[in-house]
Amino acid sequence: MLNFRYYNPTKIIFGKGVVDKVGKETAKYGKKALFVYGQGSIKRIGLYDKVVKNLKEAGIEIVEHGGVKPNPVLSHTRAGVEIAKKESVDVIVAVGGGSVIDEAKAIAAGAVSDCDVWDFFEFKAQVKKALPIITVLTITGTGSEMNAGLVITNEEKKAKFGFRAEPLFPKVSFLDPTLTFTVPPNQTAYGAVDAFTHVSEVYCNRAKRGVPISEGIMETIMKTIVKYAPIAVKDPENYEARSELMWCSSLALSGITWCGVGDLTLPAHMIEHSLSALYDIAHGAGLAIVTPAWMRYMKERRREHLLDFAVRVFNVDDIDEGIKRFEGWMKSMGCPIRLSDANIPESDIDVIAQNAFELSKIWGMADFYTVDVIRDILRLCV
Amino acid sequence: MLNFRYYNPTKIIFGKGVVDKVGKETAKYGKKALFVYGQGSIKRIGLYDKVVKNLKEAGIEIVEHGGVKPNPVLSHTRAGVEIAKKESVDVIVAVGGGSVIDEAKAIAAGAVSDCDVWDFFEFKAQVKKALPIITVLTITGTGSEMNAGLVITNEEKKAKFGFRAEPLFPKVSFLDPTLTFTVPPNQTAYGAVDAFTHVSEVYCNRAKRGVPISEGIMETIMKTIVKYAPIAVKDPENYEARSELMWCSSLALSGITWCGVGDLTLPAHMIEHSLSALYDIAHGAGLAIVTPAWMRYMKERRREHLLDFAVRVFNVDDIDEGIKRFEGWMKSMGCPIRLSDANIPESDIDVIAQNAFELSKIWGMADFYTVDVIRDILRLCV
Repeated sequence: MLNFRYYNPTKIIFGKGVVDKVGKETAKYGKKALFVYGQGSIKRIGLYDKVVKNLKEAGIEIVEHGGVKPNPVLSHTRAGVEIAKKESVDVIVAVGGGSVIDEAKAIAAGAVSDCDVWDFFEFKAQVKKALPIITVLTITGTGSEMNAGLVITNEEKKAKFGFRAEPLFPKVSFLDPTLTFTVPPNQTAYGAVDAFTHVSEVYCNRAKRGVPISEGIMETIMKTIVKYAPIAVKDPENYEARSELMWCSSLALSGITWCGVGDLTLPAHMIEHSLSALYDIAHGAGLAIVTPAWMRYMKERRREHLLDFAVRVFNVDDIDEGIKRFEGWMKSMGCPIRLSDANIPESDIDVIAQNAFELSKIWGMADFYTVDVIRDILRLCV
Repeated sequence: MLNFRYYNPTKIIFGKGVVDKVGKETAKYGKKALFVYGQGSIKRIGLYDKVVKNLKEAGIEIVEHGGVKPNPVLSHTRAGVEIAKKESVDVIVAVGGGSVIDEAKAIAAGAVSDCDVWDFFEFKAQVKKALPIITVLTITGTGSEMNAGLVITNEEKKAKFGFRAEPLFPKVSFLDPTLTFTVPPNQTAYGAVDAFTHVSEVYCNRAKRGVPISEGIMETIMKTIVKYAPIAVKDPENYEARSELMWCSSLALSGITWCGVGDLTLPAHMIEHSLSALYDIAHGAGLAIVTPAWMRYMKERRREHLLDFAVRVFNVDDIDEGIKRFEGWMKSMGCPIRLSDANIPESDIDVIAQNAFELSKIWGMADFYTVDVIRDILRLCV
């Protein structure tokens, strides 16, 4: 095993009906909460009322910051920071999917700092403290509910950047699988692909092979997602499928998967960020296009890793066949697997590659992931 | 999946040479440390000097509390509490195996409380706060370095009791596999059995079967221990074996294994505590005797669970054969698997059962684990 650090202090409260503990847990961190949510789906499922009632019963004053977009944007984040500062909130309650939680994290950092919040994303400033964050998860995939990472899109710069910082671990995350019953099939699939690739990218790119404990955990997560995602897509109220997907997604980016195999590297994610920054495409859909292409590009360099992947996750002893099964699994759930499936013209590849290279530099991957390499990977998405 | 809570805030710093960060991490929690260690093996391997030097370089004043026994005892723990109070230490640095860490936890709780430390073990008082604990692990097995539990023996009452409390999670645990190179073969085996049974007891007793994510993690840990423990026993300086065992042992009782399958229950551990309270036997050796007997006793009640165990951990499709393989694995490493192997007379079974029943009551297991049931299980140890 390689040397590693593991730290994940988020408390998980998982299961049916756990949301009635939100007020009690939030009250441990303060009396005034910024309630961050998205485009209103939480109102349709009655969750908004439930959370508001529960917070009020715990004596918590609520300041609202709704309207977070999928692929959350900087302007709305900055507005949230302003409200949090002006209202001097003590704690942030984020109710939604990864986008809502990511924006909540950026606000939590920005609210107790003097710099512009985008400075954190360009590594011009470091997050040393943040407001405490409580999350109620409604869409699985990003794993943001159990990690210290976040991604925000700067609309002006057309840059979708991300970073991690210890103070941004949510204090408590409420994971009730029934809250995901209303997530539509396509979003369910995209979330599953996102979580799956958080593991498969690490697995196929790990610096050290032959670490059975971490490899076994990764294989377990991947196989469980492969099994249950199509069930949840077809049968949205299947509790077992929703709960396995939910917990697998949280674990996938929690840090437990890459202990001893090398640092977290997410090259396909890095390239995908440009797709969802430049086009109206869900992150998981973009990953479904980029990840298999990245695997094909890496075939010679990561032969043994990809063979492990084919054999142990898809039960075939051939790399190409393994990648095909992976694509077939995603396609069967309605995911795009080529740029054309998402109406992204091949002629845009240069622009996308140039955009992705900016993040490659920021994430310290530019030595290998040059514009040329990224372009070659994108060509395999055609 | 069943509803669950998961929380584990211990920071793990894992790998070769990590001990040189002990001073830096300890300094985050205070200026005066109680240095808790055992019978002197850390002096023989040069670790004592290394830690002292490192703490001093970080400006930390050291108060010593050495001499912790394997199966740590209450009298020595009380002495530690007194020193910690008298010297007003800020933080505890525990260097050793599970015994040292367990005693350090009891001292950490006792040092900031007015009650007698044994009150916590009889659930007459609750641990609401504790001094911060930093650990440097030298023997793997108990998992105490990454959980909030501890076990102490009250010599007068001949009671070996344990409990868990959130404030007792170590803040930071340093896991350097090379520090376990000098652990003798029998202790290596006992530690492996301890860690293995932390998982297998949960696995074979889980309230909910059919939770692939947690079952897969448990199977991975068990299979990895089965593979690497005999290697470490034969080849003590095998880094891969030592590191896999170390991380598996930490994960085994970290809480990650029983998410969604039901609460932690450790009936074989409960019975074993009486063996190591009454006789001069290592905890892991006692477990090697009790656990297969417990499995045989549960054969009809946990048929499917035990079949999963036989099939998925030992690759045989028969329960009896699975238990035999489990015993064979332990025996091959030199563990006792019958009471007579440890020179414990069959005629003592009544006394042992009576002793174990006290803990059965304290742990809330007395509905099922009556004196009669415990006696029947012990008879299967003959």
